Amino acid sequence: MVAPTCECPDPEMHPVGIACIALVTDFGPGIYVGQVRARLSASVPGVPVIDLVHDLAPFRPDLAAYLLPALVRDMPPGTLYFCVVDPGVGGERGGLIVEVGANWFLGPDNGLLSRVLHRADHARPYRIGWSPKGQSASFHGRDWFAPAAARLCLGQPLDLTELGRTDPAGAEWSDELAAVVYGDRYGNLMCGVRAASLPAGTRFRAAGRLLRRARTFCGVPPGEAFWYENALGLVEIAVNQGRADRLLGLEPGDKIELLSDGEAELAYV
Amino acid sequence: MVAPTCECPDPEMHPVGIACIALVTDFGPGIYVGQVRARLSASVPGVPVIDLVHDLAPFRPDLAAYLLPALVRDMPPGTLYFCVVDPGVGGERGGLIVEVGANWFLGPDNGLLSRVLHRADHARPYRIGWSPKGQSASFHGRDWFAPAAARLCLGQPLDLTELGRTDPAGAEWSDELAAVVYGDRYGNLMCGVRAASLPAGTRFRAAGRLLRRARTFCGVPPGEAFWYENALGLVEIAVNQGRADRLLGLEPGDKIELLSDGEAELAYV
Amino acid sequence: MVAPTCECPDPEMHPVGIACIALVTDFGPGIYVGQVRARLSASVPGVPVIDLVHDLAPFRPDLAAYLLPALVRDMPPGTLYFCVVDPGVGGERGGLIVEVGANWFLGPDNGLLSRVLHRADHARPYRIGWSPKGQSASFHGRDWFAPAAARLCLGQPLDLTELGRTDPAGAEWSDELAAVVYGDRYGNLMCGVRAASLPAGTRFRAAGRLLRRARTFCGVPPGEAFWYENALGLVEIAVNQGRADRLLGLEPGDKIELLSDGEAELAYV
Repeated sequence: MVAPTCECPDPEMHPVGIACIALVTDFGPGIYVGQVRARLSASVPGVPVIDLVHDLAPFRPDLAAYLLPALVRDMPPGTLYFCVVDPGVGGERGGLIVEVGANWFLGPDNGLLSRVLHRADHARPYRIGWSPKGQSASFHGRDWFAPAAARLCLGQPLDLTELGRTDPAGAEWSDELAAVVYGDRYGNLMCGVRAASLPAGTRFRAAGRLLRRARTFCGVPPGEAFWYENALGLVEIAVNQGRADRLLGLEPGDKIELLSDGEAELAYV
Repeated sequence: MVAPTCECPDPEMHPVGIACIALVTDFGPGIYVGQVRARLSASVPGVPVIDLVHDLAPFRPDLAAYLLPALVRDMPPGTLYFCVVDPGVGGERGGLIVEVGANWFLGPDNGLLSRVLHRADHARPYRIGWSPKGQSASFHGRDWFAPAAARLCLGQPLDLTELGRTDPAGAEWSDELAAVVYGDRYGNLMCGVRAASLPAGTRFRAAGRLLRRARTFCGVPPGEAFWYENALGLVEIAVNQGRADRLLGLEPGDKIELLSDGEAELAYV
Repeated sequence: MVAPTCECPDPEMHPVGIACIALVTDFGPGIYVGQVRARLSASVPGVPVIDLVHDLAPFRPDLAAYLLPALVRDMPPGTLYFCVVDPGVGGERGGLIVEVGANWFLGPDNGLLSRVLHRADHARPYRIGWSPKGQSASFHGRDWFAPAAARLCLGQPLDLTELGRTDPAGAEWSDELAAVVYGDRYGNLMCGVRAASLPAGTRFRAAGRLLRRARTFCGVPPGEAFWYENALGLVEIAVNQGRADRLLGLEPGDKIELLSDGEAELAYV
């Protein structure tokens, strides 16, 4: 018997070679992660599961969408990203799978996966038609997306429908988002803007202050707020030996302002 | 040599077929979980360990007792639940194992395991007689319960004494507890009441407000507090697009009031 | 070919028999632990990784240094401790490996490893000469120390230079540190002082109160602050049925005062 030859493997027919499941949620500490892990562990015990992030801003897929591509940038291939930030659970939004190279992203169709979809040249979105009987109305992460992730690992049917690139939610969202999308443990503020997208000398204004660029924390005096390209490639606002969130009074969802060189000069006067 | 035939396997003599250890604690983030995991990993490296919950209300076995049966309701069988919420560590309380079907629960005898014991028809409680030499007085989770759990997995003696169903602490506690027993990451408040135990049209009063039932968050206007049957089968107080803990000023341990239909009408006038 | 005979195995030449990697960081909940775990999982998938602690006081290697030896005291041998509390990332500080018996400690050379180095009779420090190309300037945990840890597990060269015992940072730090070094989930305050180092009857003064010694929480009246030897062997300030952090208004970094018996009597008058 000869294996079928095609450029686009059909996930309905073939196990897709998933080496690892990475969890990306706003579940926080608490009971939800364990419930999902127990389901995955029972269904696909041989697949390692990694907690990539669980403290995304609650109920804000519009912010998480801009962190997600940065978060996975340097991850090993063959990963299934289980992505759940899902304020509309129990409502009408569907379930989505996006295939990007050797990786898969699975989650609610609410814009969360829109940036990984639109930034890749050959990403392919699918609507998930399968759903289990008797699932709860309020915990699709455990009751729908976890068993769907297991079925994807096992090559079992998910009743997938391939979609056009602009069919899933969030197609119209901007390429970059000039806002805080994630606050880390140290008070640093990650923004939805890729540093590589910016001209040299770019400054930001946030909370009434001008922020200049530095290479690292050691490049500015203690207590000064600045921005730098963080280890994920994003614009990050930080304070040397301090907390940017407290100094600037900013949190995820707050806007920042991008200034051209000329504007920055004016603002200094 | 012939294996003894009996309906009730003796945990002193036979490894009990534990597929997984699930951790259920109030340890929070911090150093305690890792210390327990290191012990388990060294003693029973082949048994997977899952973090089911670590942010139970600190020192409140009386609340955790009502969350526990709901938390394990849909878990795969063959699980050993390592349960530690232990304000009396260093005092007189003993160690307890409860066998419920294909599952085992292990922890302090302070009522924490009372609801899993009393809600199952054929649950069997045992007092743990074995304890290691040189254990600390303040961290029985690591020094007593973790090695005891490992011994149970390995079928090694624990000097168990079978108890009557009403011998362990908490036997006299009520079937349901009309109080908040757990607060989740989103501000939702889980109560110690099974939704299936309630007549249709049940309302609650909490923090001076009447709460009606809805099926999901999308069933009420934004900002309104309501209750629904959550994915664990419990009564959960929530606010659509808001935080019930902040809106109502409630936290674990606070009482809620169950109203009959007539009372609710009166309260509205 | 004959293996070289020497008392001191050369980590450049031989895999070092690492059974487990234990993570010791101030990363908190969030995205950093998952990024490190993904790297380790891809490089050394067969080596189990344990989260020992991630909520060390942010940016305070001077405090963590005194918790670390206590934290690893009862751990199984053959462990590689991946230790990152690294305020100077992006600056000049180097990378350090300390070999202590069958264990290894790896992290920044900023004093974090100074107490494990100086409390062991035959500990050996090495400077890490190897570093990967293209690492970020701000996340050495993921980009330098994680791949270095993987190389150590695999017995691959790290361009190590053996150092004298007093070469690494922190050599001049005191043996014990009379200060809070870690606050746990329950509000208990661990201090950088080993209880076994103290004469009988030692009292402390903290936040204007005299603290006497008890064996466990049950040894003092509810609401009273005291100190005891905790399960790690450290002096820990606690309150029976209360939170020491709130009652005393103390947090990691705050000093405590050790009193001789005579001083304590005077202070009572």
